[in-house]
Amino acid sequence: MEFRLDGIVHINYGKCGIGKINLELKPLGKCSRCKKNEAIINLAYARQRLCKDCFNDFFVNRVRRVVEEFRMFKPGERVAVAVSGGKDSVALLHALKKAFPEQDIYAFYINLGIKYYSDHLEKKVIELAEMVGVPIEIYNLKEKEGYTIDDFLLTKYKNKMCSVCGLIKRNIFTTLAVRVNADTVATGHNLDDTVSTMMSLFFAGDFEGIARLKPVLKPLIKGQPRKIKPLITTPEIEDLYYVALNELPVQECGCPHGEFTPIKGMKKWLDEMEKEQPDIKFRLLSVFRRKFIPLVDRGLGEEGVEEVRACTVCGMPSSSEICSKCRRVMELMEIKERRGEIKMEITFEELERLREKERVVLLDVRDRKEYEVYTLEGAINIPADEIQKRWKELLKYKRTHKVVVFCNAGRSSYAVAVKLRNLGFDAYSLKGGIISHIQP
Amino acid sequence: MEFRLDGIVHINYGKCGIGKINLELKPLGKCSRCKKNEAIINLAYARQRLCKDCFNDFFVNRVRRVVEEFRMFKPGERVAVAVSGGKDSVALLHALKKAFPEQDIYAFYINLGIKYYSDHLEKKVIELAEMVGVPIEIYNLKEKEGYTIDDFLLTKYKNKMCSVCGLIKRNIFTTLAVRVNADTVATGHNLDDTVSTMMSLFFAGDFEGIARLKPVLKPLIKGQPRKIKPLITTPEIEDLYYVALNELPVQECGCPHGEFTPIKGMKKWLDEMEKEQPDIKFRLLSVFRRKFIPLVDRGLGEEGVEEVRACTVCGMPSSSEICSKCRRVMELMEIKERRGEIKMEITFEELERLREKERVVLLDVRDRKEYEVYTLEGAINIPADEIQKRWKELLKYKRTHKVVVFCNAGRSSYAVAVKLRNLGFDAYSLKGGIISHIQP
Repeated sequence: MEFRLDGIVHINYGKCGIGKINLELKPLGKCSRCKKNEAIINLAYARQRLCKDCFNDFFVNRVRRVVEEFRMFKPGERVAVAVSGGKDSVALLHALKKAFPEQDIYAFYINLGIKYYSDHLEKKVIELAEMVGVPIEIYNLKEKEGYTIDDFLLTKYKNKMCSVCGLIKRNIFTTLAVRVNADTVATGHNLDDTVSTMMSLFFAGDFEGIARLKPVLKPLIKGQPRKIKPLITTPEIEDLYYVALNELPVQECGCPHGEFTPIKGMKKWLDEMEKEQPDIKFRLLSVFRRKFIPLVDRGLGEEGVEEVRACTVCGMPSSSEICSKCRRVMELMEIKERRGEIKMEITFEELERLREKERVVLLDVRDRKEYEVYTLEGAINIPADEIQKRWKELLKYKRTHKVVVFCNAGRSSYAVAVKLRNLGFDAYSLKGGIISHIQP
Repeated sequence: MEFRLDGIVHINYGKCGIGKINLELKPLGKCSRCKKNEAIINLAYARQRLCKDCFNDFFVNRVRRVVEEFRMFKPGERVAVAVSGGKDSVALLHALKKAFPEQDIYAFYINLGIKYYSDHLEKKVIELAEMVGVPIEIYNLKEKEGYTIDDFLLTKYKNKMCSVCGLIKRNIFTTLAVRVNADTVATGHNLDDTVSTMMSLFFAGDFEGIARLKPVLKPLIKGQPRKIKPLITTPEIEDLYYVALNELPVQECGCPHGEFTPIKGMKKWLDEMEKEQPDIKFRLLSVFRRKFIPLVDRGLGEEGVEEVRACTVCGMPSSSEICSKCRRVMELMEIKERRGEIKMEITFEELERLREKERVVLLDVRDRKEYEVYTLEGAINIPADEIQKRWKELLKYKRTHKVVVFCNAGRSSYAVAVKLRNLGFDAYSLKGGIISHIQP
């Protein structure tokens, strides 16, 4: 983020997958609230244009109101905030402490062992917790459980990474909450996430799934924390504004396992609808929350809720003897036992040996111009930000070649190699990038 | 419709409001079913490309299957088909008779007294009934009840014409069905209509409204017909194909009261989604029908269904003493008593007298070129097909002027004048058009 003298705020935010969000906040005239400062944020649904200070008040007040309206927690209770380092959870931790300065708030961070990502986030989250003034509990997946999220590229879940990762995080956050005696776990799900997931589940006929997206979810097993979503009425973009305007520490690069498509179908459609009906997301949330979910709950009441028991491995709620998380981890551990550690990166020397005995295609993911100036012999070029459109050009190599991806320093190429693994390619990233070759 | 030697079928269909649908069916290779004839219709959701004959079979078989699956009627029952002369009801009558040649089928047509529209449709529907070989019952609203749909432009419903018209038609179709002892009334609601209405009602939180969109609706009062939708799984576009390929008599111009916007929000969005997921409309219908409506019905069961009684005026189902239709008609009759008949058209002589004593703006809705060659003195030009985009240019005259619309012969100008009345203008159409002035 960057302020300029002309009053324009520039926001750069690393999205999941490859790419960045670039936003500019321009002066919009007098603030609708204080009538004094220059407004920079237009809230079309509320017909208000706010200055920085009034927006911050508005944001924090909304969090306070939501917590109170849904009785998310009481004074004296311990609230654990699941912080990933992304804009939503960063905004949540900061705003929650502002709204409830006396509350016993705790930050949780799980280091998922995602290369070029998790360690970066850990630093940001530690910095944030210090700034906000709350204790932080860090859980290192590799140290505590012996595997990383990256390892799942070895399994059949390689193209469902977000789903596996979500499962593991939910499980661990609950475990941690029980351990530190937290009464509730707060997550950063925003309005856009919630409504688009509800719509997708509706289309799939998964009504029970929608009912689980309530603002407050009571524990399925006694003694476990309730789960709350204090940002459920906060539009996604406002989390970004809040983080940027308050200069909070936040992720600067996206998760390499993130989806290819920048915004998925349902979210894109809701954004389109919003242009014509600025309050559509709020209205939909209200229909689901006030009318639909009560109807589903009554319907389920008649049919009888699915039986829940404690997983015999981890003790978390499960519909079978062993919960989904533990089953997936067991599958992974078995594969790791057989195939050894996952190898995503190779050095230049390894690449040279590999080319002698196997068919290798070299993929340069730097810009066209850089490629034209200098590249590795025989390399083809698809710039990283074009991969999502053009990866099909590689299909002809899928069954016959190993794909070795390289960029300047080895970060973008790692993300692209991960993507290609998601898609079923036998892909590797050149460690240290082309620089490691030129300047050995 | 028009066939050409190159195998391309050209379809022109008058839409409601102003405008036409233009479609071209091009040769697509061998038919997926008969493997013999040239396919011209691509059914992406079914992964089939069909020739004319196979498409007709497919269309009629689907109607037969839907009727049987939902037990819409039994052999020996009398089925009244509500025919408007639009593509859906025309396709329905024809396909239903093809699917059930032995069934006692009856066509109903209501002449709604819509100028430049209803008489045209009546001819088409009579022609169709003769072609299909079924008796037809025609109900002339003006003759039987003393008013027309156009008259509602005098009332506060002038911008909700489609809603009032639907109310009146539903009421009369039921009355007619009772009179001729029909067991069921079939309407032409297609897949697109049904799913987009369901979605809109969902967004509005009107779940009970969705439950009324079942394929078969049992009568609320004993002795009345059940209502069925045999085209509920037929995509809208296929009704048009069916009508065109079988050269059925169908409306050639749209209803002047039709909406401005060519395709409304929800339908447009579903069409967009369909490009990525060709079966989305079918899936949504299935979610609503199999999961959602049963849930709503169970929910309503607990709360108790709204009490239904017979309207004391017309005897049709109503939630109050007098039904909505009769209440609206009473309002209209009172206004007509006070203000006399509605006057939408004026002659050239009347226009001249009017201009002497009142402020009049003349609106030429012919093409730009025609306007430039010759027009009436002082006239401004907005071509009829641009009115929906540009009507706001007239806002400055709304409170101060009468708007007199003219075209060549008086038909387009009538539709535009109706639109302007819907929007609250004091608008008239020049009877006979500019030709009546040049060639008196």
